[in-house]
Amino acid sequence: MIAIQDTYPFDAAHCYGCGSLNEHGHRIKTVLDGELTITEFTPQPYHIAIPGFMYGGLIASLIDCHSTGSAAIYKMVTNGKSVGSEQAPRFVTAHLEVDYRRPTPLGPVRLVGRLIEIRGRKAVVDTDFYAGESVTVTGSAVLVEMPESMVGEGVVPPR
Amino acid sequence: MIAIQDTYPFDAAHCYGCGSLNEHGHRIKTVLDGELTITEFTPQPYHIAIPGFMYGGLIASLIDCHSTGSAAIYKMVTNGKSVGSEQAPRFVTAHLEVDYRRPTPLGPVRLVGRLIEIRGRKAVVDTDFYAGESVTVTGSAVLVEMPESMVGEGVVPPR
Repeated sequence: MIAIQDTYPFDAAHCYGCGSLNEHGHRIKTVLDGELTITEFTPQPYHIAIPGFMYGGLIASLIDCHSTGSAAIYKMVTNGKSVGSEQAPRFVTAHLEVDYRRPTPLGPVRLVGRLIEIRGRKAVVDTDFYAGESVTVTGSAVLVEMPESMVGEGVVPPR
Repeated sequence: MIAIQDTYPFDAAHCYGCGSLNEHGHRIKTVLDGELTITEFTPQPYHIAIPGFMYGGLIASLIDCHSTGSAAIYKMVTNGKSVGSEQAPRFVTAHLEVDYRRPTPLGPVRLVGRLIEIRGRKAVVDTDFYAGESVTVTGSAVLVEMPESMVGEGVVPPR
């Protein structure tokens, strides 16, 4: 299963959250699973809000990058293409909403995205954020595709 | 001018975004200026979305922690107390909205918060996010005060 972030153009692969080429960043990987998109992530011990619980800013960041990756996946699927068959489109976030429903214990988390709408250069993706079997946070993002002229050519090699 | 984060209880001062005691974190400082709250921050060179522009997840994180700090400030002011006169209340985020209106160039930024509503244990804070003289992002957060039983005693010494 190829992660969408491994098929971004070189010069759009430096994002702190999801860029394969950002050595300091989170380097999240998002894959398609049926009609859903999945990102798994394990925070560092210092990624806390209060001791024992995950930092909400990081949660928002993960939802943000998971949503841009999901939008790229859904754009390709909508156009009848599979992830990895060509350079992925690159989406940026226009609007992000996050609802913190209960505290998220510090530990591995799983983001599950679903497409709400895609039309022209715009997509809407909703996310359920899981700690274990429990949805602790939900998110919704409006994404807009960057013009190809901004992101150049060349695809990041998978790692 | 005392930053609200320097008056949090010890055991609520480890937040990756705003905890004075988190050695790996951003350690933002929020102060009252008239009726507004101010946080200034300089990102690292690797805090990028695409080269030259600031990572949106970090922007959301900064708005989140700036809002929790602002809520604590406004709660004290509403109760006739000045920041630093006693241990600050500790708010957590229930809902966060971020609108990315234009790209934010990588460089120093300034968050300006204003109180929209405070009632009981709940507060609403809006934020304008500045790069230079330009508002590139706006945010709105709903914050809820943590029970005192969760945060314990003792105040973080200013640094």
